[in-house]
Amino acid sequence: MPPYTVVDIPDIADIHLARARIDDWTRLTPVLSDPGLNQELGCILYCKCENLQRTGAFKFRGASNAISRLHEAGLEGDVATHSSGNHGAALALAAKLDKRKAHVVMPDNSAPMKINSVRRYGGILYFCSPTHESREEELAKLVENGMIPIPPYDHADIIAGQGTAALELIQEVPTLEQIIAPVGGGGLISGTAIAVRGTGQQVYGVEPEGAADTVASLEQGERVKSWTPDTIADGLRALIGVRNFAIIRNEVKQVFTVSDEDIRRAMYLFWQELRLLIEPSSATVIAAIRNHPEVFAGKKVGAIISGGNIDPGYWKSLTNSD
Amino acid sequence: MPPYTVVDIPDIADIHLARARIDDWTRLTPVLSDPGLNQELGCILYCKCENLQRTGAFKFRGASNAISRLHEAGLEGDVATHSSGNHGAALALAAKLDKRKAHVVMPDNSAPMKINSVRRYGGILYFCSPTHESREEELAKLVENGMIPIPPYDHADIIAGQGTAALELIQEVPTLEQIIAPVGGGGLISGTAIAVRGTGQQVYGVEPEGAADTVASLEQGERVKSWTPDTIADGLRALIGVRNFAIIRNEVKQVFTVSDEDIRRAMYLFWQELRLLIEPSSATVIAAIRNHPEVFAGKKVGAIISGGNIDPGYWKSLTNSD
Repeated sequence: MPPYTVVDIPDIADIHLARARIDDWTRLTPVLSDPGLNQELGCILYCKCENLQRTGAFKFRGASNAISRLHEAGLEGDVATHSSGNHGAALALAAKLDKRKAHVVMPDNSAPMKINSVRRYGGILYFCSPTHESREEELAKLVENGMIPIPPYDHADIIAGQGTAALELIQEVPTLEQIIAPVGGGGLISGTAIAVRGTGQQVYGVEPEGAADTVASLEQGERVKSWTPDTIADGLRALIGVRNFAIIRNEVKQVFTVSDEDIRRAMYLFWQELRLLIEPSSATVIAAIRNHPEVFAGKKVGAIISGGNIDPGYWKSLTNSD
Repeated sequence: MPPYTVVDIPDIADIHLARARIDDWTRLTPVLSDPGLNQELGCILYCKCENLQRTGAFKFRGASNAISRLHEAGLEGDVATHSSGNHGAALALAAKLDKRKAHVVMPDNSAPMKINSVRRYGGILYFCSPTHESREEELAKLVENGMIPIPPYDHADIIAGQGTAALELIQEVPTLEQIIAPVGGGGLISGTAIAVRGTGQQVYGVEPEGAADTVASLEQGERVKSWTPDTIADGLRALIGVRNFAIIRNEVKQVFTVSDEDIRRAMYLFWQELRLLIEPSSATVIAAIRNHPEVFAGKKVGAIISGGNIDPGYWKSLTNSD
């Protein structure tokens, strides 16, 4: 366990503090809206483009916040985590900016582009089997060797950092009625829910059918602890975290599921209308809005576009576009 | 000839008027900066992301301005142009927003994605041989049939519209010292040069070695009237226009050339650092900055990223990235 105090579940004030803390490192990402996309989806959509965040994903917000907190506390030394890629790259860069090293446990089936990205930002890689248990086991070894663990989502500083994306979005578009974000381990969605506590937007989540452990957990009333993910959305294969589930249960209006086919179509639509390549995890929110006019039609909707780390050749093969 | 008055060469006031005129139609595109890109290029770069403009290119600015001017003048009827793609798609959308049709002459070797785009925005297509003469000939036929010509670059309203990108950029980053833009027919670079008349940034242009008719024209002191282009930068294969050359000669500090290999590398670098796919034409500016530290090192440089209309599979094959 990290020897510094963590607030178990952050509050809106923690998100404002995080926003101030990470301001020098993160990019104020653009919010894009497009008439063609609005027409296609039947709502007025504001896309918070975290695919254009540094390291290509919102994950850099949480990682920057966690590393900055260590710095403020005077805690030196290397950090360690496990990640399907985006959190690993984000932590590697944040650690580098603070003159540390990040040690990153990655499943051996991770996207090659994401592996390269962790390396490029100076992260030290450890491969493991693609199971939750194997990830945790490898990480435990690193922590035993004295490294400070920065888990990918089930951590107050991470949640507070991820919430800054929604905070910026509602500051830029205060008239938003709804916000939707993807759900993997739940760092982004839980931070988002806390960020809008003061302003009252309804928060929706979405996960792939093949990694719908959060929906199953909500139905059962407790966290599902085992799930073999089967989805193209490589960033959403994680199990929902403890803190994250607690927040979602209380503060998220509904979590939708979408099929991989829905995701592929949404990836193509987003490219067609906005000329942005987004990774499958990001496209889930577009797919959910398209599938649920009974919820979103005519509304002002904020969508957190979570990341853009996908190889263009692989994107092409997924979307089968000509 | 269009029966409404055109100011032959626009002034800074025309660009401000154009900016107000097209405000409802165009997107205020984001200006992105990235520490990794800055480190790689050795300057402080501000990218005006016209690849995220509606229709995926700056061309929508000029087309919107030209169509709005027709509307203001009470001139009804269809419009016609020739285009390698981006101006055609832009004009098709602008015409549609004003309840007209755009008739677009395109070389039969145009990028399939650009052909689809013209169609998707409601443009009516006419194919021709990929020569300057063939384009002009086909367009002349349409004009004889009563259509209003909106040429792609050699036109005051087009130049004024394209200049609005640089106007927005210097309004957002007033401390810029230099601005660089690609040179094809010269609509963007000439509008850019006029936009900074009041503020004094040095303006640089860049063209591919295989379409370097502007550099040749500057050397000879008069417009080169024939050139067989050979470059991957499909958006820059046009010959420099009359008005455009006059402006460039007087107001552009220098026009660089870059090789197709430089362009490929720059496309990959831009993706790696910013997660944006840009078309070869856009990447020329990044390549020129990289090649000329004696001009750009340590400076605050604005780069107009002209467009993002490239098929991701084709992008992949051009960059040979893994």
